[in-house]
This record gives sequence, C-alpha cells and structure tokens, in this order.
Amino acid sequence: MIKAGIVGGTGYTGVELLRLLCAHPHVTIQAVTSRGDAGKRVDAVYPNLRGFLDMAFSPPDVETLAGCDVIFFATPNGTAMRMAPELLAQGSRVIDLAADFRLADPAEWATWYGEAHACPKLLQEAAYGLPEVNRATIGAARLIACPGCYPTAVQLGFLPLLEAGLIDPQHLVADVKSGASGAGRKAELPLLMAEAGESFKAYAVPGHRHWPEIRQGLARIAGGPVGLTFVPHLLPMIRGIHATLYGRLNGDPGDLQALYEQRYASEPFVDVLPAGAHPETRSVRGSNRCQIAVHRPHAGDTVVVLAVIDNLVKGASGQAVQNMNLLFGLPETTGLELIGLSP
Amino acid sequence: MIKAGIVGGTGYTGVELLRLLCAHPHVTIQAVTSRGDAGKRVDAVYPNLRGFLDMAFSPPDVETLAGCDVIFFATPNGTAMRMAPELLAQGSRVIDLAADFRLADPAEWATWYGEAHACPKLLQEAAYGLPEVNRATIGAARLIACPGCYPTAVQLGFLPLLEAGLIDPQHLVADVKSGASGAGRKAELPLLMAEAGESFKAYAVPGHRHWPEIRQGLARIAGGPVGLTFVPHLLPMIRGIHATLYGRLNGDPGDLQALYEQRYASEPFVDVLPAGAHPETRSVRGSNRCQIAVHRPHAGDTVVVLAVIDNLVKGASGQAVQNMNLLFGLPETTGLELIGLSP
Amino acid sequence: MIKAGIVGGTGYTGVELLRLLCAHPHVTIQAVTSRGDAGKRVDAVYPNLRGFLDMAFSPPDVETLAGCDVIFFATPNGTAMRMAPELLAQGSRVIDLAADFRLADPAEWATWYGEAHACPKLLQEAAYGLPEVNRATIGAARLIACPGCYPTAVQLGFLPLLEAGLIDPQHLVADVKSGASGAGRKAELPLLMAEAGESFKAYAVPGHRHWPEIRQGLARIAGGPVGLTFVPHLLPMIRGIHATLYGRLNGDPGDLQALYEQRYASEPFVDVLPAGAHPETRSVRGSNRCQIAVHRPHAGDTVVVLAVIDNLVKGASGQAVQNMNLLFGLPETTGLELIGLSP
Amino acid sequence: MIKAGIVGGTGYTGVELLRLLCAHPHVTIQAVTSRGDAGKRVDAVYPNLRGFLDMAFSPPDVETLAGCDVIFFATPNGTAMRMAPELLAQGSRVIDLAADFRLADPAEWATWYGEAHACPKLLQEAAYGLPEVNRATIGAARLIACPGCYPTAVQLGFLPLLEAGLIDPQHLVADVKSGASGAGRKAELPLLMAEAGESFKAYAVPGHRHWPEIRQGLARIAGGPVGLTFVPHLLPMIRGIHATLYGRLNGDPGDLQALYEQRYASEPFVDVLPAGAHPETRSVRGSNRCQIAVHRPHAGDTVVVLAVIDNLVKGASGQAVQNMNLLFGLPETTGLELIGLSP
Repeated sequence: MIKAGIVGGTGYTGVELLRLLCAHPHVTIQAVTSRGDAGKRVDAVYPNLRGFLDMAFSPPDVETLAGCDVIFFATPNGTAMRMAPELLAQGSRVIDLAADFRLADPAEWATWYGEAHACPKLLQEAAYGLPEVNRATIGAARLIACPGCYPTAVQLGFLPLLEAGLIDPQHLVADVKSGASGAGRKAELPLLMAEAGESFKAYAVPGHRHWPEIRQGLARIAGGPVGLTFVPHLLPMIRGIHATLYGRLNGDPGDLQALYEQRYASEPFVDVLPAGAHPETRSVRGSNRCQIAVHRPHAGDTVVVLAVIDNLVKGASGQAVQNMNLLFGLPETTGLELIGLSP
Repeated sequence: MIKAGIVGGTGYTGVELLRLLCAHPHVTIQAVTSRGDAGKRVDAVYPNLRGFLDMAFSPPDVETLAGCDVIFFATPNGTAMRMAPELLAQGSRVIDLAADFRLADPAEWATWYGEAHACPKLLQEAAYGLPEVNRATIGAARLIACPGCYPTAVQLGFLPLLEAGLIDPQHLVADVKSGASGAGRKAELPLLMAEAGESFKAYAVPGHRHWPEIRQGLARIAGGPVGLTFVPHLLPMIRGIHATLYGRLNGDPGDLQALYEQRYASEPFVDVLPAGAHPETRSVRGSNRCQIAVHRPHAGDTVVVLAVIDNLVKGASGQAVQNMNLLFGLPETTGLELIGLSP
Repeated sequence: MIKAGIVGGTGYTGVELLRLLCAHPHVTIQAVTSRGDAGKRVDAVYPNLRGFLDMAFSPPDVETLAGCDVIFFATPNGTAMRMAPELLAQGSRVIDLAADFRLADPAEWATWYGEAHACPKLLQEAAYGLPEVNRATIGAARLIACPGCYPTAVQLGFLPLLEAGLIDPQHLVADVKSGASGAGRKAELPLLMAEAGESFKAYAVPGHRHWPEIRQGLARIAGGPVGLTFVPHLLPMIRGIHATLYGRLNGDPGDLQALYEQRYASEPFVDVLPAGAHPETRSVRGSNRCQIAVHRPHAGDTVVVLAVIDNLVKGASGQAVQNMNLLFGLPETTGLELIGLSP
Repeated sequence: MIKAGIVGGTGYTGVELLRLLCAHPHVTIQAVTSRGDAGKRVDAVYPNLRGFLDMAFSPPDVETLAGCDVIFFATPNGTAMRMAPELLAQGSRVIDLAADFRLADPAEWATWYGEAHACPKLLQEAAYGLPEVNRATIGAARLIACPGCYPTAVQLGFLPLLEAGLIDPQHLVADVKSGASGAGRKAELPLLMAEAGESFKAYAVPGHRHWPEIRQGLARIAGGPVGLTFVPHLLPMIRGIHATLYGRLNGDPGDLQALYEQRYASEPFVDVLPAGAHPETRSVRGSNRCQIAVHRPHAGDTVVVLAVIDNLVKGASGQAVQNMNLLFGLPETTGLELIGLSP
C-alpha cells in the first residue's frame, strides 16, 4: 500500500482527493494536515466522508508527514515550495496541486505570484503533470506540478491541432467558463451564493495566472511561442469547466474528427465525442474525464473545440491521482474509473 | 454474475441504475429497454456512460428480458404491473422502482393512481423494499416494491420515535423538500429551469400519492393507524431530499440521540449525525446514505428530525441495488460504498 | 421631498433600499454611509445603480446624517442602538432594518444578541414595523423597528388564524426556507456558492434569533403566550422566503379561505391566492408583496398555511419604505407598486 | 393612451411585456391572446400580475385585436407573418418579438426557418428594431422586427469597433452565453431544471438562426460582408446574456475606452463601464440596459468586448417597448427607467 499524506485537506481539492484516495485500492492515508482545523475530525468538516476516514487533521509539520511515500499539497500557492525540499530529502515524492511548480521560469513565477520563488532549482526538476503530454517524464519524477484546471482543459483541447500544425499559433482564443469551486474554499464576497448565483461574468481579462501556464504548455506542444487570448468566466454552478477554443485554420485541415479520435485513441481519460456533439459539464461531474468535440462551423476557416472537465477531478485531484498511479507504476486508471454523476 | 435487465432506461432512475450497475462487481447488464429510444445507443442519451456500457436500447419486450436473473422497472407508474406476472413466471425476480406494488390495498391504489390495479394478487405478494424495516422479507421475495423517495426519508426519520412509542402517532408533520429530478425526466412546463430555478414552492398540499404510502409504512411501524400531514416542496436544485419531521412527544423522551444511534447502529446506510448537527443534502449526493439528526428545540414537547437522502440513490436506484443484494445473498453494501460528491 | 440617509449602504438590504428610494417620487437621498467603503462611488459597488445615484459613500458620522428627515439603518445588529438616540435628538426619524429594537424586553435582547442593550428606553418606544398589525402606532412613531424577514412571513401567515382563535396557540410549527441573501453580504464559508448551492439544509434548529421575535409578535396577536417550533432552512437560491405553517385546529374552522380573504381585503401588500393555490417565491421577487394560500389537507385537524415574500423587500427594505410612507403621511403604496420579476 | 394588444401572452417575452406595459404611463392593454389558455385569467398563469391586470386571455383573432394602436407578437416564429398584413391594413402598428421580419432576404429566411416566408413584401418594409443603429427608421415604421437576444448583445458590442473600422471584419468571434429563459417557455427535455441546471454546454455550433441575423446586422454596420464565428451556450440560470466578443485589431486602435464612451454617450440604454470593468448579468436583471466593457489584454492585437443584457428586456420585451416609444413619439425611456434587481 502506498502511504499518502495530504497537506491542506480542508479545501475543495483536499476533500476531493480524500474522496478518491479513500476508494483507491492501493493507498492508505497516513495524515491529513490543516493549520486551522488541526485536532478536528476530518469528517466533521466533510460529513460525506463519515465512515470512510477515521482521522483528525494534523498540524502541517514535516514530522507528521515523515514516512509518507507520497505527499499531496492541496494548499494555497506558496506553501509547497517551502516544504517540498525537506520532504523530498526524506524520500517522499511530492505532488503539488497548487501553482508552485507549474512555471519553469522563476522570473515569470515571481511576476505572476508576487514573490520570489523559494526553490528555483526544483522548478527545473518538477515534471508538469499532464500525462497526455508528458507521461514518461512524470513516471520518472520525484516532484510533480499538477496543471491548473483551466490549463488542463485548454491544452487538451488545442493539443491535436497544434501538434498537427493546422492552426495559426499566434492567434489562439480560449473562452473558458468555470464553476465556483474552481476559486477554492475561500470566504470572499464575490464567491457568495448571493453574488455568484444566477449571474455570469468574465473576470481577470487583463491577466490571469493561468495565462502564462497555458502559454508555456501550448508553446511546448507547438514547438515555439504562441499568442493566446484567454478569458475566464465564472459560472453560477459548482463543478465543471467548459473551454470553447477558437483557432484559425492554416488551410484545409482534412478530417478533424479523425485527427482528434486518433490522437486520443489510447488516452483513458480523454473522450472524443461523435461528430456534431456538444459536451456538457455534467457528463463528467465527479469523473476524471475530459470530453471533447471539434467543429468547423459553416466549413469556414475557424475551428471550434469544445472541451469539458470537472475542475476538481481532471482539473485537480483526479489528475493528481492519475499522476500518482504513474509514479508508482500502477495502471493509470486505478481508482479513477468513475462514471460522471448525471443528472 | 447476476444478469440484469432494466425496463425504461431513459429516465433519471434508469441512468442512475446504470451508473450503479456498471460498477457493481457481480452484475452484468443484459438489456436496457426503451420504447421511444429503441435502437439508439444508451451512451448517446447519457454520455456519462461512454466506455462503461456498450449497448443500445432494446424494445420493451418480454422476449428481450428472458433469461435475466433480475429485472428492474424504472418506468412510469402502471407499466410494471402489466409486465411483471409474465416475467416472474419465467423465473426472473422483479424490482419495481415505480409505485405499482407499493400500496397493499388495491382500492387505495386505484384511488391514487387513477385506474384499477392490473394484478392485485401480486400486490399482496410484493415485499416493500425498505431494508431497514423489512430486511428478512425482502431477502425471500420474488417481487420487490422499492419505496418512493419521500417515503424513504420520512419513514427512516420517524422510525425510532414510532417504534419506541415516544410521539403522538395521530399528529405527525412531514415537511419535505425535493430536488427537481424527483419529478422524473418529463417534458413538463413546471419542471423547466426557467420555472423551477431560483424559486421555491409547495405543491400537492391537498393530496400527494406518497401520502398513503407513507401512512401505510408508518402504520406498520407504529402498529396502528397514524395521522400525517405531508407537504412536499420543490427545491431549485437537482438531487436531494430533505425531510423536516415534527412529532409531539408523549412525555420525557429520554436521550433521543442515543435512541437514534442505537436503532441504526448496524444499518450500513443510515448515518446518525452527532448531536446538534444539521445534515445537508450535498453530503449524500450520489451516495446511498440517509443522514439523520434529531433535535428537541428549547427542551420542549416537539421533536424535530432532519433526514437527507439522494432521491435518485437511497430514494430510488441505490435502494433498488441494495434490495438486489439482499435478494441474491450478497453483502448488502456491495457496489454501494459510494462517498457523497461534495461540494 | 423627504431627505433620507442610509447608514450601512453596502449590504443587501442597503442596495435594495437604494433601488426603491431612487425610484420613490417623494424621496431624495442625502447620504449613504459605509465605514469600509467611504469615499468610493456607490455605483462602483452596485453597478445596477449607475445613472440613478450620483454619490459616494460617506463615513458613518452623525454629522453626515444631520438634517435627514429619516434615517435608515441597514447595518449589522448593534449599530443602530448606539447612534439612534443622538439622531432622534436632532429631530430625524429612524427606521432600523436590523434587530436592535425588535424585542421589547432588554433582558431577552441581551440573551439573544450577546450584549446588554445600549438604550433600553428606546426599546419601549420603538414601534414594531409590521403595518398589517400595527399601522396606527407606526404612523405616530419616531423610531421604527422593521421586523425580521422570517418574522414577517410567519406572522402574516398565522395572523388570521390566531386572531380568530381557531388554532391551538401552544403548538405552532413554522418550517421556513430562505434564500441566501437573507444571511446578508458576509464573507463566510457557509454562504459560498460552492457550499450553499445545489444543496439544502436546516440550520439553527436549537435556537435562532428570530424565534423570540416571532413568539413576541404571535403572542401579541393571540393575546397570550404561544408555543412555537421554528425551523429555518437555507435555500440554494438568492431571494425569497417560503413559510410553511402548521396549526392544530380547535374544531371546525369554517371557511378558512374566506377568513383569509376578509382579513387581508384592504391590505395592499398581502395577497390571498385563490383556494387550492401554491404560492411561489418568484412571483413576489422584487415586489413588496406577501402571497398566501391556506389549505386543510384531507379535511383534517391540521391547517397548512403557505406564505411567500421577497426577504429583501417585504422582509426588509420594502417594508422599511412602507413604514416610511406611513410615517410621512404618504399613501402606503407610494414607490412600492412593483410587479414581481418572473421568470 | 396607446391601446396595446399582445398576441401570445403566455410565453416569457409575453409576461415580461405585460410587466412593462402594466407600469407604462401611456399604455392601456386592450387584449392579451393565447390559443391554449383563452378564457383563463392572465394572472392565473402569472400570479406576479395579480392586481395589475384584470383580464383573461382572448383567442388570437384579428377581431379581438381590432382597434389596437399597436400589436405586439410574442409568439413562436411563423405566427406574425401570417397575421400582420391584415392587422396593418386595419391601421395598427405591429411590433414582432419573434423572428418573422428580422432577415431582409426571404430566401435566407426560408433556409433558416424551414418554410417559405408568408409575406416577403413586408420583409422589405419592416424596420429592424435596434434603436442604437436604426432610430430614425424605426420612428417612421408601421412594422418593426425586434432583434433577437443574441443579436442585440453582439451588435451593440461590436458596433463601435466596426463603425470605426478598427478590426478585421472577416474574423469576428462571438462567444455568447444565455440563461434558459432565452429558449422560451417550451416543454422540452433539454430545458428541464434537471438537465440544464448545474451544467453548461454550447449548442448549435454548426449553425444557429441568430447567425444570419447577426451577420446581416454587422454587415450593415461595417458597410460590407463580415465573417463571423458564433457559438451560443446555455447557462444554468434564468435571465441574462453575456457576450464575449473577440476582434483582431487592424493596427493601433487608440483609446478604445474613449471610443466606446463617445459612441454611446447619448444612448440611454447602453452603459459603458469604467476601464477595466467586468459586467455581470445580474446588474441588468429586469432592466433595459446593455452594460459594456472593452479590454485589450496584454496590449496585444486582440480586442475583447464584454456585453451583458437581460435577454427578456433589452433582448426582447424592453426593446419592444423602446421601439413603441419611438413609434409613438414618446421619450424613448418612458416606462423603462428600471433599476436592475441585484442581488
């Protein structure tokens, strides 16, 4: 059994990790830490876990986590980069669900996250945990940076087009919509039911922290810098991301449906829908899947890709478990064969 | 492996059954019928099932279902009572998720369902599928009537109080609220997002079909007729039932918390929350659990019970699978150890 | 023109007051205060007011409010009782939308609000601003305590039955459901979209601050103490309260529909629906109305009353304006002839 | 007083028209027709209108509507084109909220609406009722085609850029999201709460009927044909449209904020938000406003416009009343000075 520790277990990615790991056949949870709720039973905060996890939150100390084979950080940005070096030195592997190790360039990290990076060397070492792009590297890593939720949906959506060189990489448009859980469990006014419910808005149009991450990922795929307009929006619902992606075709793209189906034929968690389909976020609710459809409206020069994920699963905790499976040589789908909860 | 057939697979209890049965280790799905969608792939209607069920809807014929060990009816009321006799004669067991076999008295059935019952004899034979009350009978039955969603929550909530004779059985009040999926997948105006969303109302206050069923169940528990005021309400959400139950105490009830904990100590799917708790429907979303709390406000003469279930799971398809497990001698929790999807 | 000041204009009752007062033909808004947002334009916080209110928030000083004919407190509990004496001394009238002057007994106030009352004398003087009960007193008052949102719905619902002595006043049950805006604009975890959305729960069953207020009001109506079980619930929506009220009939009540229609025949803001109806919160969204239906299911001994209001209008800011109209001798409906926004 | 008739008063644009016209100081409602509900009181279908409209639905006959100064069609597509000629001949003016007169080209109409147009001559005569583009023509018309909801938001959003020639008109992208009321009050499965709630999807990506209408409108503005990719999406909420518009800048665009502010300086219903803002649909809920923000992320070559309207008001019934005001020489804002209902 893999001994797992979770740092920062009170947030939404934390509880979702616990849901997945409690049901994982090869994992035993050794510790779940929380600075604010240490000593409190985990299932008092999350009653859905009653009967599945008999444990209280621990304080977030290195000692508590000693001996874990893998440690997940489900913490705010800036925590993992301070604790990871010591934990790695103790021999644990680290999977960070926050942004600490997502950007390769420490200067860019500092620009977007507002402080110098605490361990730039590990930035270089960290594997970017998007298995559909990076499977081999992940399997050999000690430290994995799980992609952000928006970046997961956008990269999986653009991937086949960019790999095939079919669209102009300088003018990509990603219009992406997220449920409110994507913002985390933070007591902030704009996230209130009475603010975010029954309404819709874009936010962070001038600049969002996932923009450099997406650009970095798409550039790796395209083999050169890309131009990206990224507009995130807040949906009046809880779970789900829908990316609507627009690319300018360089010429006749051939059979786009076949392109997508072939690219993802052996990917267990990317499901290309039949031609003409429109994916719905509810179909992947609670599952680790990305469902994708590709359209070329009016046979024009613009391709439209629709990609949906559950931001807390494939966009966070599910992907983290997928990475863990790769790290420990387990079948990639172990513990993740989840059917979306619909309706 | 148990060979299962599902009649009426396009409704919400149908798709939820499929979600559960696809993941059940001892079941193989032999046929899913639909009059309207016969020939169409199941996963074209429910894309969350893609990759988990490679099958098209069959027409709802007895021949199609021949050889099934168990047949689930996830149909509108009035279908199962017409097909069940022949299927039972063929040796299949039948689990009806609709109302056809819930009321023991054919006259009462006719009053509430608007037509004569098609097989009154089977009405007598059918086991009422609430395992917490009726486990032994269920295990020995050929035909099981799964309780309605409201009746499940109300009966589990009142059960310990009525068994112990602590409240006046003539003046029970059940104020119950249900998500919109409880009304089924029917194209009716009041169920539209633009009608039922962001609003709340009671309905059917003069009389609801679950009223006689609840009264029948409570009377069996209480050992005599009960008086019940039952008010159902429609919640602006999809899944979940919350029953708020009021009983007049006959005298000092003693330790109500202990009463509930003891009564349900060995029930795998009834979870009595700690004293003072308020269950939330989201904690049981997608799970087969009923979570319950019992309160006695201001130490007065009125007891308040709060009970939540997922109307599509413990209130329908999960309970059906629980009954199937009993029928086939499997551990009752097989395939049902599901953690609620929260948030 | 009535010169109005609003203290605490950044909350939901504040913005709703502004919506109503901006459209009121006899009011001019002199100042809107906010401790936290002083200096900021009001329409920067509430863009729905752009073009209707050209003003910045002021600091909450007595000087700022000097010269106002009427001052509304849309503040947290405990603010109005500290500022009201001086403002009244200056000659302004005061309408408090918070709880500071709702309970007549200072000891009870202290019990429920956790501190001694700052001006118990004014507690005695304040008129309880429920015009349907208290119209004459309100018109002659200097200081008005607007009822809470739950108390408004519950009192209007039980009023005709209690006045007529038709039900047992010792065993009243009020099962009440509120949209999330009823909790105010507070950055608290349980009010997040991702916590309160797509879920439902009761809360404060052991004791809620509106319980003594409702009991006080019902006792005045009934002419003696009442027994009340009050269970508030949180709805996954923004605006609206639905009270489901249960009373035990003392005997044959006669024509309950006629009773309600006659009692409220001349009330402009209480609308008794036709027999058999089920009010919906959306029908009163944005309006100052209470819509009510009365049922006697199965001709039994329990009467069920359904009452809906918009918690921010008839449950708060609209009722405040209704009180202001009475205070200044205006037709009671001035500025309040609002049609509910449905769908 | 203007005598108004409404044909098809049971849909959402119908009830919203009634809400607006009941409060309009210069309108008296003469008849509201409904084929299905003739004889039934209007306020029995829409209880929010109780006390404001004392009238039953009439059958949809020309006789019923005779003598009306203006007749609104809030009907499904294909109704107005059959009744309008006779009504116009009787001297009434006609304002169609459906699509019958929106497209100038009968062949294109037939392509998108699936039948030949019933009165192509009137297609030519009809004024396109977008006052911000077409004010003078509207004032002189007999027959007005109110724009669709999506077309209103998209045209107002792109207008300043296209008029100024700042973007490439061949590669416009409109990613637009609508609340469920935009689909009308139709008993269809995909519009159910349990289908459309708590989920998000694009639809009609291969082709939507508003695409030719938007293209026609943008071409008139741009002075030549445009290339448009239009992707509509369904939001899990009731009211509101949010258009996110992308245009490729031809070069340095200068001060885009000033461009928008100047273009709309004298428009009463288009409100350009301060630089850097993100409009929310809730701020215009129930109001006739379009709120717009313009962004140029990372000072790049792509401009992003955010535009919100209430689909039932500025996107339908409010715009119809605005057009009526123009037709009858009233101040354009009469009866439309509505503050958005927020929260």
